[in-house]
Amino acid sequence: MIVPVILSGGSGTRLWPLSRKNRPKQFLALVGNTTLFQQTVERTQKLGDARSPIVVCSEDHRFTVAEQLQELGLGGSSILLEPAARNTAPAIALAAMQARQNDPEAILLVLPADHLIGDETSFVDAVKRATPLAAQDWLVTFGIRPEAPETGFGYIKRADAVSDSGFKVAKFVEKPNAEAAAQYVQSGDFDWNSGMFLFKASRYLEELEKHSPAIYTATARVFATAQPDLDFVRFDKASMIEVPDDSIDYAVMEKTDRAAVVPVSCRWSDIGSWSALWEAADKDADGNAMQGDVIALDTHNTLVRTYERHMVATIGLDDVVIVATPDATLVAARDKVQDVKKIVDQLSSAGRSEHQAHRQVYRPWGSYDSIDMGERFQVKRIVVKPGSVLSLQMHHHRAEHWIVVSGTAEVTCGEKVFLLTENQSTYIPLGVTHRLRNVGKVPLELIEVQSGSYLGEDDIVRFEDVYGRA
Amino acid sequence: MIVPVILSGGSGTRLWPLSRKNRPKQFLALVGNTTLFQQTVERTQKLGDARSPIVVCSEDHRFTVAEQLQELGLGGSSILLEPAARNTAPAIALAAMQARQNDPEAILLVLPADHLIGDETSFVDAVKRATPLAAQDWLVTFGIRPEAPETGFGYIKRADAVSDSGFKVAKFVEKPNAEAAAQYVQSGDFDWNSGMFLFKASRYLEELEKHSPAIYTATARVFATAQPDLDFVRFDKASMIEVPDDSIDYAVMEKTDRAAVVPVSCRWSDIGSWSALWEAADKDADGNAMQGDVIALDTHNTLVRTYERHMVATIGLDDVVIVATPDATLVAARDKVQDVKKIVDQLSSAGRSEHQAHRQVYRPWGSYDSIDMGERFQVKRIVVKPGSVLSLQMHHHRAEHWIVVSGTAEVTCGEKVFLLTENQSTYIPLGVTHRLRNVGKVPLELIEVQSGSYLGEDDIVRFEDVYGRA
Repeated sequence: MIVPVILSGGSGTRLWPLSRKNRPKQFLALVGNTTLFQQTVERTQKLGDARSPIVVCSEDHRFTVAEQLQELGLGGSSILLEPAARNTAPAIALAAMQARQNDPEAILLVLPADHLIGDETSFVDAVKRATPLAAQDWLVTFGIRPEAPETGFGYIKRADAVSDSGFKVAKFVEKPNAEAAAQYVQSGDFDWNSGMFLFKASRYLEELEKHSPAIYTATARVFATAQPDLDFVRFDKASMIEVPDDSIDYAVMEKTDRAAVVPVSCRWSDIGSWSALWEAADKDADGNAMQGDVIALDTHNTLVRTYERHMVATIGLDDVVIVATPDATLVAARDKVQDVKKIVDQLSSAGRSEHQAHRQVYRPWGSYDSIDMGERFQVKRIVVKPGSVLSLQMHHHRAEHWIVVSGTAEVTCGEKVFLLTENQSTYIPLGVTHRLRNVGKVPLELIEVQSGSYLGEDDIVRFEDVYGRA
Repeated sequence: MIVPVILSGGSGTRLWPLSRKNRPKQFLALVGNTTLFQQTVERTQKLGDARSPIVVCSEDHRFTVAEQLQELGLGGSSILLEPAARNTAPAIALAAMQARQNDPEAILLVLPADHLIGDETSFVDAVKRATPLAAQDWLVTFGIRPEAPETGFGYIKRADAVSDSGFKVAKFVEKPNAEAAAQYVQSGDFDWNSGMFLFKASRYLEELEKHSPAIYTATARVFATAQPDLDFVRFDKASMIEVPDDSIDYAVMEKTDRAAVVPVSCRWSDIGSWSALWEAADKDADGNAMQGDVIALDTHNTLVRTYERHMVATIGLDDVVIVATPDATLVAARDKVQDVKKIVDQLSSAGRSEHQAHRQVYRPWGSYDSIDMGERFQVKRIVVKPGSVLSLQMHHHRAEHWIVVSGTAEVTCGEKVFLLTENQSTYIPLGVTHRLRNVGKVPLELIEVQSGSYLGEDDIVRFEDVYGRA
């Protein structure tokens, strides 16, 4: 009966340079081998009778969401594409309308896609304990038992018990100062506001209509424009832009008299900074959290992440964060990592791309990585997923050499269609229509050498595209 | 009359990861656009009647030395190739024997290739002031007027004046502790031991024979095996290994009664560590020395170097050294950089290559950079200098695709010889003899995609090689 709703709209610049606008943190394997998004989805599948999730995400991330769900065997989930970001109240409302359509009694488990939960058993248990409350028309929020007087989170104050494990909410409080936070923790009556909820879709919509009717009405107008497109559901952008931007906390939870909190201790983290990731990560005896090829001498309480074929050596560091990626490296004092936002802002105002795109770029058909670049050439490593096909396309300013290094390609070049396999190459002259398809069962990897006077990604004319980009 | 002798045998691991065994720090542009070696050579050309230099270096660096001299228009210099490193006393003896052969009265100006001199006018002036002393058979060492009570250098104590600007050496003292160093500086009688000398070749050899006859005799035996080969002079390795390993300080300077010191203030640095480079570098208002694409927030007294197409962002750092290279990044506390040696040792004992070779590898004909690598393929960017030619070669385990992206190549593949120009490609099958030549006037750049089950550099059979490597 529980329908998981995964809120995946975050743009996650606080974990730059690993997290960037085109592939924010929920889609990265920050802890373990699967992504935060996948871990969140998998968590919902541990509930007894969970349905496949409704995901709400930005249009830009639709192929990433679809692929990451497919990897979990959850193709066929509903993926609601927000044509504009309007915060959590409208996002959850769209999901609630979608769920109510299928099942008027549906209970939603609303989870941000980018949270980490160390103790999933406790979390699942809390959801089970919260379910009767949701069935009794409470809007349940999960309150995290505070481990420290954090000033980076909002707090929820408990009032009277409404069940064995739930309490009426006395009040929501904003991020406190250190003194207030210490007092909250000491009192024992406060929990961290996690942004995770359990309630009936219908009940949420009723409360939204009652307390924030403008959001309700505008969102209902958006939902009326829903256009299913395979797993995706698209909405009208102009209508979406009309929706007031607001969080579920402001729009509903702080106003309703049906808010309940179910406290839980489950080693939760919103991974809101590199420092938070360091806190949540497994650490060695020196307090270091290392990932990749790292040699550390006399280094303590430090987080290091690097990438393939790149080692990082550290000497004499304490409380530092080092994140190396192919095109950008961050080195920051651990207690200053919140200023990474300033770096991202600087990059943005300088018209650069490093805050937005990784060197490796994901596409619905696979990915490419710009491995070298010169004045009149660029070299890319291209990976095409089995069965996938790029658009039928043409470039005005560049010719391309393709060398297959793994797998088998079906190449269309002008009128000709032919197969190319490992260690074979071909040439696509400037101006000639071409297409690349992986007809095999294993990933197709090829090296593309582009040659020409202009090598921008926008020199592309698409004639046909299975992903609707033509 | 003055013959510069450039000692270029250092392996320079203290500036890892920028400096590595195959291309140590003297061959890098650490300050300014030319290398330390080139700056040292150019310095000698500012003396009135300087000859072209005698360079003493390792066989491994012969092409680098030849190329860097050529860039200065000093092709035709003598390059003495040490088949084994035996410290400065034998290296200078070989140079002295070479110089004496041409001119029995030759005066040698002996300079390590990896020192920085900020005030060249003062240095040149000191050499001029020292020349009469050298002519009077003094072995002159240049004493750097101490700027601080450094404990990382040896000191020289002055005795009575022997000219307007020179003093008899009272004694040489080893690297002192902090207390002794402070006392030396305060006394005004001590200078830093720079390792730069001026003396007659004949006089040095006489003193060497007198005080360290074993070194003299063994080195004379090596010199008897000299084999000129264009600019290079080669020596017998077995004979070289017989030479006792010793420094000029121990073998001669501390023992002779003809040692004189000429003090000089010339902003000298031996750039013995990243910290020393930071000291010597131009710094911004925050005390930062930055090179490359760097964004620094709230960062002070920090050195950052990065490479092409890679940005480094720093937040909240003080007194840190960050050196990013394509395959390895160092992040170290500035007062702990001497431990970089331990990193290099760890890499060495783990049988890795990052302490020895850069990703970009220099060859006599140009260079290559391994820009990507997979299970059965490797991608290289190859640059061939105008007029240069690779060996006629064959591989047992790999085929190669070549795509020219700049310049013009003459390709030999089996029986065929043909030209390949920008945006043209060819295929070299496994087992086929081939050769690549830059017949043009501009550098030839090509992308090579190797495909095969074994891609090591040692899968090469050379049939002919203009550089004597066949």
